[in-house]
Amino acid sequence: MLHISRSLTKLLGELKKLPSVGDKTALRLAFHLLKSPENLSALAESLLEVRDGVRFCSTCFGITESDPCHLCTTPRDDASICVVEEPQDILAMERCQAFKGRYHVLHGALSPLNGVTPGQLRIAELLQRLEKGLVKEVLLATNFTVEGEATALYLTRLIKPLSIKVTRLAHGIPIGSDLEYVDAATVQRAVEGRSEL
Amino acid sequence: MLHISRSLTKLLGELKKLPSVGDKTALRLAFHLLKSPENLSALAESLLEVRDGVRFCSTCFGITESDPCHLCTTPRDDASICVVEEPQDILAMERCQAFKGRYHVLHGALSPLNGVTPGQLRIAELLQRLEKGLVKEVLLATNFTVEGEATALYLTRLIKPLSIKVTRLAHGIPIGSDLEYVDAATVQRAVEGRSEL
Repeated sequence: MLHISRSLTKLLGELKKLPSVGDKTALRLAFHLLKSPENLSALAESLLEVRDGVRFCSTCFGITESDPCHLCTTPRDDASICVVEEPQDILAMERCQAFKGRYHVLHGALSPLNGVTPGQLRIAELLQRLEKGLVKEVLLATNFTVEGEATALYLTRLIKPLSIKVTRLAHGIPIGSDLEYVDAATVQRAVEGRSEL
Repeated sequence: MLHISRSLTKLLGELKKLPSVGDKTALRLAFHLLKSPENLSALAESLLEVRDGVRFCSTCFGITESDPCHLCTTPRDDASICVVEEPQDILAMERCQAFKGRYHVLHGALSPLNGVTPGQLRIAELLQRLEKGLVKEVLLATNFTVEGEATALYLTRLIKPLSIKVTRLAHGIPIGSDLEYVDAATVQRAVEGRSEL
């Protein structure tokens, strides 16, 4: 990259660290921001605000500006906890409005090959919350990947002995799908979990 | 967007102003940055550095940190000026290393329907540079869009009476193209501009 200013080169480097941003996208974003200095300032300031204002809730480990967070303090069903991998998964759950209980964010999933062991996830904190005896059901909403499934299995083995019901999100055909194009493993799970009409 | 912090909502709003960033991409970028606070700080700081350090060169109106810019001060061919629409077009020209002269950035192209008139482009400044009598050739490298072609035509009419040669980048078949898939207008221009072997 010839004849480009030092600070712009640095900005391009930072932009390229973002997911799915390569050389061309970084250039496009940088020149877009250069064209509107007020957007550039607003973006920089809101980044700093997020850095200084957003933290993890000490109860559920979701993101929040006030600790404990909104979801831990508003009246909700204390008898159920939904366990998710990442803070953004709470948004996906809240969007469907089907779950009325509390949340717990693990901040990852078990992945021994990548060096992620139970000690690095917020599992001890989850067990502490369960020990209080209020919780009757733990809904495991980790991702449906190898790591997410392994984490769900691991947690099931830990939680079941506490005589707490452990549930998992249903597998099945996504709404609006054409059966022809759904993968075999999903169809198999949908048959196993079929419901009577 | 339920239960999300105020500063994060603001950041999502700013990210969505970027080209081809929608709701989902903004969320992905924001949570990616939240996961690595050092990247978040570095991005914010480099944005501020660019805002404070990068300006337009007072000669060619390209971007620079020192005025006049590197391209205007290093030894290059003073007899030719390449006219481009945007600062990033200089990068595309420099990448090919086929042009050894100076540059001039118009900061846009004529577009009467969008309210872009000659007065809003750096055309007066271009004419001032030409009046010094050093320039023998102006290479018009505006985009090959309706606006870019109109701007090239407009500039040709202004510059030709000064007895300066006005040239335009060649039209033709892109390298590596399959003739079958090249549009008719491009093939027509390639035939008109055919060269003897």
